[in-house]
Amino acid sequence: MSTTDTTTVAAYAAPAAKAPLERVTIPRRALGERDILIEIKYCGICHSDIHQVKEEWGEAPFPMVPGHEIAGLVAAVGAGVTRHQVGDRVGVGCFVDSCGTCENCVEGLEQFCLNGATGTYPIGPDGEPTYGGYSTHIVVTEDFALKIPEGISLEAAAPLLCAGITLYSPLKRWGAGPGKKVAIVGLGGLGHMGVKIAAAMGAEVTVLSQSLRKKDDGLKLGATHYHATGDPETFEKLAGTFDLIVSTVSANMDFDAYLGLLKTRGTMVNVGAPSEPTPINLFSIIGGDKTLAGSMVGGIPETQEMLDFCAEHGLGAEIEVISADRINEAYDRVLASDVRYRFVIDTATI
Amino acid sequence: MSTTDTTTVAAYAAPAAKAPLERVTIPRRALGERDILIEIKYCGICHSDIHQVKEEWGEAPFPMVPGHEIAGLVAAVGAGVTRHQVGDRVGVGCFVDSCGTCENCVEGLEQFCLNGATGTYPIGPDGEPTYGGYSTHIVVTEDFALKIPEGISLEAAAPLLCAGITLYSPLKRWGAGPGKKVAIVGLGGLGHMGVKIAAAMGAEVTVLSQSLRKKDDGLKLGATHYHATGDPETFEKLAGTFDLIVSTVSANMDFDAYLGLLKTRGTMVNVGAPSEPTPINLFSIIGGDKTLAGSMVGGIPETQEMLDFCAEHGLGAEIEVISADRINEAYDRVLASDVRYRFVIDTATI
Repeated sequence: MSTTDTTTVAAYAAPAAKAPLERVTIPRRALGERDILIEIKYCGICHSDIHQVKEEWGEAPFPMVPGHEIAGLVAAVGAGVTRHQVGDRVGVGCFVDSCGTCENCVEGLEQFCLNGATGTYPIGPDGEPTYGGYSTHIVVTEDFALKIPEGISLEAAAPLLCAGITLYSPLKRWGAGPGKKVAIVGLGGLGHMGVKIAAAMGAEVTVLSQSLRKKDDGLKLGATHYHATGDPETFEKLAGTFDLIVSTVSANMDFDAYLGLLKTRGTMVNVGAPSEPTPINLFSIIGGDKTLAGSMVGGIPETQEMLDFCAEHGLGAEIEVISADRINEAYDRVLASDVRYRFVIDTATI
Repeated sequence: MSTTDTTTVAAYAAPAAKAPLERVTIPRRALGERDILIEIKYCGICHSDIHQVKEEWGEAPFPMVPGHEIAGLVAAVGAGVTRHQVGDRVGVGCFVDSCGTCENCVEGLEQFCLNGATGTYPIGPDGEPTYGGYSTHIVVTEDFALKIPEGISLEAAAPLLCAGITLYSPLKRWGAGPGKKVAIVGLGGLGHMGVKIAAAMGAEVTVLSQSLRKKDDGLKLGATHYHATGDPETFEKLAGTFDLIVSTVSANMDFDAYLGLLKTRGTMVNVGAPSEPTPINLFSIIGGDKTLAGSMVGGIPETQEMLDFCAEHGLGAEIEVISADRINEAYDRVLASDVRYRFVIDTATI
């Protein structure tokens, strides 16, 4: 493909809100001075792709090409590129550009760029649609491509770009490590990476899941304990146990009950959340000086740190690789919690 | 009075839930080996005294002698006392004993003793009633009496034992200091100490109060800015402004709106809270990696640190000293927010 003009590449897109995805062609911009062209090899399917395609997070432009868990090889570089070379293994996560000059960008928190980060899809701060990773190629500015270390396969690395950093960032910020008791709520695409990363950080990990259905998996992934939240006794037995709880669940839950599982000065971090306001009794955090925090992916420097950490500890996502013609079926299976633990599209099949 | 037997002392008590307080006599225990007898000089009236007397925080024993903002002089010491001498200026706050051996006590977080701290009133973990500071004398174990430095008058020091530490602890823990923008929500007994302490810590302080009625006071107390939360424009103008917000308000409020005032990775700490569950949209903390925390008074070492800090910076509470026969009237005025900023009982009038 040309790198000097806008080109068209193959992709899978939802033509309209809630419509099944289908093969389309989309434009990719000409390679700018500091851009790199990535030949996408694999792209993970994140639950948020489904929310976006269904327009559950607000109005969005269509056709929509989802995908922000991208792993591939550098196919071409702009004249001014210094960080990457053709052939390099690279990844792209949830955002592909930011102002670079605001307080948050300077601190490496580009996801919170005060001038608006450009989402990998569906839209940039200028209102122009952007197209994600369910596609054969993508052009991004070199600063927003991460290096995928040799120790991780590209297919197992792809989900790290969202699921990996989403868990790594709060686990690191809130002190998961030796001597700390960490609970991961929900054992799905996010949760299973939380178990792996928290265990690799040296914490004693407990999975809190609705049932004991995935208990064997949880223990294999690195958890020491596994409890069913469907059993009310769990909340009595484990009261005051955890230094840190990371919840990956988007369904409604009884936050006061979960806050009761924290030790004094413990922290519960939400990376998933119900879309509706949730009633919380603030005395659940006042008693015990507790903390309820939120966390949204991570910035570029921390995402690189996470990839290096995962390579060092031999961590990748547990995946099921699918061909592109099975994306719609995969969406149904994600909604039925029938995936262990992440679908990854082999983009050669697009 | 005798120190070898249980004695009776004068106090003001509510004989029953919601009943006006009246003069009574109550028992004080004989002085144990490590106890001190304090001649109470002043006791602050905390809003929580009113909640307790009205049984708004659950069933409680009566007659109830409120008061956990106690300042006085050591009148006698047990044979094994090493920390205090007769004549010393001392204070007692919200609790008067704890196990001393649990994880939290060892860390100096006695307020969260895992075996149950003994409240100054109304009750201990053994279910026995305890009597607070609206009284002429109190007997406490020496470890739970704080030293009041010479730089603060006893009457201005009394409210520090609750209002002071309630604000000092979260301001310190969450990093109030030079270069930080701190908002204090509510300018009452707690809030006015928050303004003084945060300003003394070097932060740039904003008061967020329902109206601009107390603006002159707020600026005199150390705030640089003062905004009315009754004006919806406040929430637009100040979006993304604060590193730290400490809310002292117990009324219902729109937490999502306040969380919108935080910078990326900012923290809102609640020391007051509505008694009913409050709807919170967790996306208000996920976007921007924000934190909603709780805080409840402080442990003994930090309370001493707070008193020393206040003495060093010449800080005391703004008070209106009253005689004991005006306690019921003072309660009505607290409920009408008609106090600038703390009533303190002159216990010589009991």
